[in-house]
Amino acid sequence: MLSFTTETLPVRNPRTGVYDYEIEIPTPDDLDYLCAQLRKAQINWAQTPVEGRIEAMQTWKAVVETHKAELIEALCHDTGRRWESLLEADIVATSIDRWCGISQTFFAPAERRTSSIPFLQIEQDLVPYQLVGVISPWNFPLLLSLIDTIPALLAGCAVVVKPSEVTPRFIKVINKTIAAVPALASVLQYVAGAGATGAELTKRADLICFTGSTATGRRVYQAACDHFIPVFLELGGKDAALVFEGADLEKASAALLWGGTANAGQSCLSIERIYVQSTVFQEFIEKITARATAIGLAYPTTDSGKIGPIISDKQVAIINEHLADALRKGATVLTGSTQCEALGGGYYCRPTILTNVNHGMKIMTEETFGPILPVMAFNTREEAIQLANSTVYGLSGAVFAATNEEAMAVAKHMTAGAISINDAALTAIMHEGEKNAFKMSGIGGTRMGPSAIKRFMRQKSYLIKNNQQPDPWWF
Amino acid sequence: MLSFTTETLPVRNPRTGVYDYEIEIPTPDDLDYLCAQLRKAQINWAQTPVEGRIEAMQTWKAVVETHKAELIEALCHDTGRRWESLLEADIVATSIDRWCGISQTFFAPAERRTSSIPFLQIEQDLVPYQLVGVISPWNFPLLLSLIDTIPALLAGCAVVVKPSEVTPRFIKVINKTIAAVPALASVLQYVAGAGATGAELTKRADLICFTGSTATGRRVYQAACDHFIPVFLELGGKDAALVFEGADLEKASAALLWGGTANAGQSCLSIERIYVQSTVFQEFIEKITARATAIGLAYPTTDSGKIGPIISDKQVAIINEHLADALRKGATVLTGSTQCEALGGGYYCRPTILTNVNHGMKIMTEETFGPILPVMAFNTREEAIQLANSTVYGLSGAVFAATNEEAMAVAKHMTAGAISINDAALTAIMHEGEKNAFKMSGIGGTRMGPSAIKRFMRQKSYLIKNNQQPDPWWF
Repeated sequence: MLSFTTETLPVRNPRTGVYDYEIEIPTPDDLDYLCAQLRKAQINWAQTPVEGRIEAMQTWKAVVETHKAELIEALCHDTGRRWESLLEADIVATSIDRWCGISQTFFAPAERRTSSIPFLQIEQDLVPYQLVGVISPWNFPLLLSLIDTIPALLAGCAVVVKPSEVTPRFIKVINKTIAAVPALASVLQYVAGAGATGAELTKRADLICFTGSTATGRRVYQAACDHFIPVFLELGGKDAALVFEGADLEKASAALLWGGTANAGQSCLSIERIYVQSTVFQEFIEKITARATAIGLAYPTTDSGKIGPIISDKQVAIINEHLADALRKGATVLTGSTQCEALGGGYYCRPTILTNVNHGMKIMTEETFGPILPVMAFNTREEAIQLANSTVYGLSGAVFAATNEEAMAVAKHMTAGAISINDAALTAIMHEGEKNAFKMSGIGGTRMGPSAIKRFMRQKSYLIKNNQQPDPWWF
Repeated sequence: MLSFTTETLPVRNPRTGVYDYEIEIPTPDDLDYLCAQLRKAQINWAQTPVEGRIEAMQTWKAVVETHKAELIEALCHDTGRRWESLLEADIVATSIDRWCGISQTFFAPAERRTSSIPFLQIEQDLVPYQLVGVISPWNFPLLLSLIDTIPALLAGCAVVVKPSEVTPRFIKVINKTIAAVPALASVLQYVAGAGATGAELTKRADLICFTGSTATGRRVYQAACDHFIPVFLELGGKDAALVFEGADLEKASAALLWGGTANAGQSCLSIERIYVQSTVFQEFIEKITARATAIGLAYPTTDSGKIGPIISDKQVAIINEHLADALRKGATVLTGSTQCEALGGGYYCRPTILTNVNHGMKIMTEETFGPILPVMAFNTREEAIQLANSTVYGLSGAVFAATNEEAMAVAKHMTAGAISINDAALTAIMHEGEKNAFKMSGIGGTRMGPSAIKRFMRQKSYLIKNNQQPDPWWF
C-alpha cells in the first residue's frame, strides 16, 4: 500500500557477520502520506468505545498467534538467539491481555461532579494524542516495540513504530499480521529505517517514545524539543546489586547470574555491578564463578547453550573497550572472556566474573550491555548504598539480605525506579509496578500500570455554571 | 545570608515609565551556594511526614497574612494595578489550604499488595525530585510564582523561584515572610534576575517549571533538554469563545468582557477571540460594545477604573502591532483604543471591540495579551468549531448556547485543556479540574488537582519475592 522507494540499507546477521538482508527506507514523502492516512483513521479509532479497540487488539493477538513460528524465525535471524525470541513472541499475547484489562477499568464514563465553588460543576475528559511515534531498540526487538505501542493504541492514538535498523527482519512479519486486522492496520504501521527515519518520524508525531541508549535518547529529546512535542525516554542503566551478610548466597548467585547474563546481558535492566559485604565476599565469588563457568555459548547452534551472540557489532566494540580498560587497570577475570570471541562470523562474550575492580574503570560506571558481572566488596551498609548510587543512571537494582525487611530498608535509599528484593531483575517478568527512570536513565512517566495509558492522553476539563445568579466579579 | 554581588538591573514602573527600582542579580557562585544549601536541607524536608510540611506551610500562611499590606503595596508598584493585586494576595491563603488538603489524602502509607504473579508482591513509593526551579511571569507575579511552588514543596522538594525581572518588587517582601519560617526558609528561596538567571537556575535544578510566553518557553524546553531534566511549560494562549443563537446574550457579553479584559487582558486564559452565530451577531456586538465603553481606565489613580496599565513595555509594542495590522487589513474599532494610549508615563489600552476581522490578521492568530476582543460571525456549528480550533494554541475556551448540554456537545470538539460552559475564563477561579495545555500552549502534566503534586515525584517500585521456591528461569 505504501510506496517505498529504492533507498536501502544492508543489515548484518549477528551469527554470521554477513550482510544478508536489506531494508527499504521510506522517503519523507512516504512518511508524509503514511502519517496523514493514520491521522485520518485515528479520529474514528479514538471515537470508537474502548471495547472496539480491545476487540481489534484481541483479533490481532489471534493473528499473531497463527504467525508465531514465522515471527520467531525472523527474530532468531535478527538477534541470533532463540529462547529469548520465544519469550518475546509469547509476551505479545500476555501484554495485549494485560493492557486490555487495564483499559477496561480505565475508561469509565465521564462523571459530572460538584466543585468547592457551589455554583460550579466539573466534568473531566481524556483526549488521546493523535499520532504517537515509537522508536525501539535491537535487544528485544518485538517486545520493546510493543511496550508503548499497545497502551497508546488502547488510549486511542495512531502509532508509527520505527524499530532499530540492526534487527529489522521481524517488521515484514508483524506488518503482515497488522494488515490482517483492517481496523488496526488503519492506525498502526511499522516502518524500517535508521536514525534519520526516526528523526523524520519525530517531526511528524504528536508525542514520541524512545527506548535505547542514553546518547541516542538525548538526540531524541532534542528532536522533540525542536518539534515542541512531549517525549518519553527509557534509556541506559548500570543496575547495581547489593549482597549483605546473612543473604542466601546460593539464591543470590543464581539470581544475579540470571539477572546479569540473560540475553547475553543485552537488557537495560541487566545487573551490571555487584557489591558484596566483605564477610561473605569470598564465598559469594566462588559460588557465582562456578555457576558462570557452567553456562555455555549458543554456538555453533542456537540450542548449544544459553548465551547468544552480541547482536550489534557496535556493542562488541564497547564491551571490548570496557574489558580492556578494566584489565589494564588491574581487574581479574575469574571466569569468562577477556575480549568478545569471534566464532563463525559472530561475536560472543561468555558469562564473565571480574574482581579487583573499582569506580575508576568504565566497567563500573558506563553501560556495558554484555554478560559481565564485576564484583566489589563493601564493609558497611552506608558504603554499600553510596556505591550503588555512585552512577549517572537510575533504572533498577537489587538487594539481597537475611530478611526482606532488611533488604527493603536498604532499597529505600537507592536512587532507581525499581528494586528487586532478594531477587534480581524482577522487572523483566513483572509489569505492574509503576516506576520512573531516575537520573540519566530516562524522562517522563511510568510505562507500567494504568498511568502508562494516561501518558498518551491529555486531560481536559469542562467547567459548568449551574445557576443563573450574576457573578460578583463581572464588570 | 546569600551574598549577592553588585550586578544590578533597572526596573521600569508601569504607571510612570520611570526606572525607579533595581534588582541585584545573583552570580553563578551565589546560585551554586544557594542550591547546595537547599539540596542539603531538602533531605530532611522530604523525610519529614507530610504533616510537618503542612505545618510549615500553615505557619507561612499566617506570616504572609501579617505582611499582606506590604505585599500588596509591592505588587501594586510592580504591576500598576490594585484590585488584581488584592486578589493575588488573597489567593496565597486559599492556595496553601487547597494544596494542604490534597496533600493530606495523597500521602497514604505504602501498602504492599500481591501481583498477578503469585509469589511476587509490590510496594510502591514516591520520591520527590530534590530541587525544583520555578520561572514565573509578570502578569500575576505572586499568584503564578506559587502555582507550582506550593505543590512542589508539599511533595517534598526544595524550590528556587525566579520571578520575572519586569515585576520583582514583591520578592523582598515574600523572602521576608519565608525567612520568618525557618523550616521553610531552608527549602524555599526567591531570587531576582532576568533570562540569564533563569538559564543558570535550569542548569542547577532537577526539574523546571515555567509559566510565560511560548517563545521563552521553547528556550526553557531547550535548556531542560541540554541539562536532561523534565520540564513543565504553561505558555501562551489565544482562547476562543463561541456564542450560539439561543444563548443568554446579556450574560455572554458580560462574562466575555470580564474574561477578555480582566487584568487588562494580561492573562494566559484571557478570551482573545469571539465567534458569534450570524443570527445574533448584531445584537451581541451592540451589548458587548455598550458594556466595554462603560469600563474606565485605572488612571490617574489605581481606583479611577478597572483597566490598569500594560505592565511590560515590550507587550505595549506587541499590542500596538496587532492593532495596526488589523486596522490596515480592514478591521473596525467599535469602541476602545486604536493604539495603546500614553498617560503619565504609562501605557493603557481601553476595552476594545473589533469587527470586520479575519484569520489573516495577527489579532486573530497571535497572542495579544491586551483587553481586546475581536468578534467574527459564523453560520454553522461546524464552522464555529473549525474557527475555534484554527490556532497553534490550546489553553482554554468558552461556549455559550441555549443549554449547558448544547454547549457541552460543542466543547467536546474544541482542542483546548479547559472549556467554560455558558461562562468565560472559569479556570481563573476554579483550580480543581485536571487539564493539560494543548498544542503550543504547553508541555507536561496538569498543574491542577492531585496529579499536579505527583508531577514533582518519581514513582518507585519494590518487587518482593515471598516464597523460597527456585525460579524456573534461573540457569
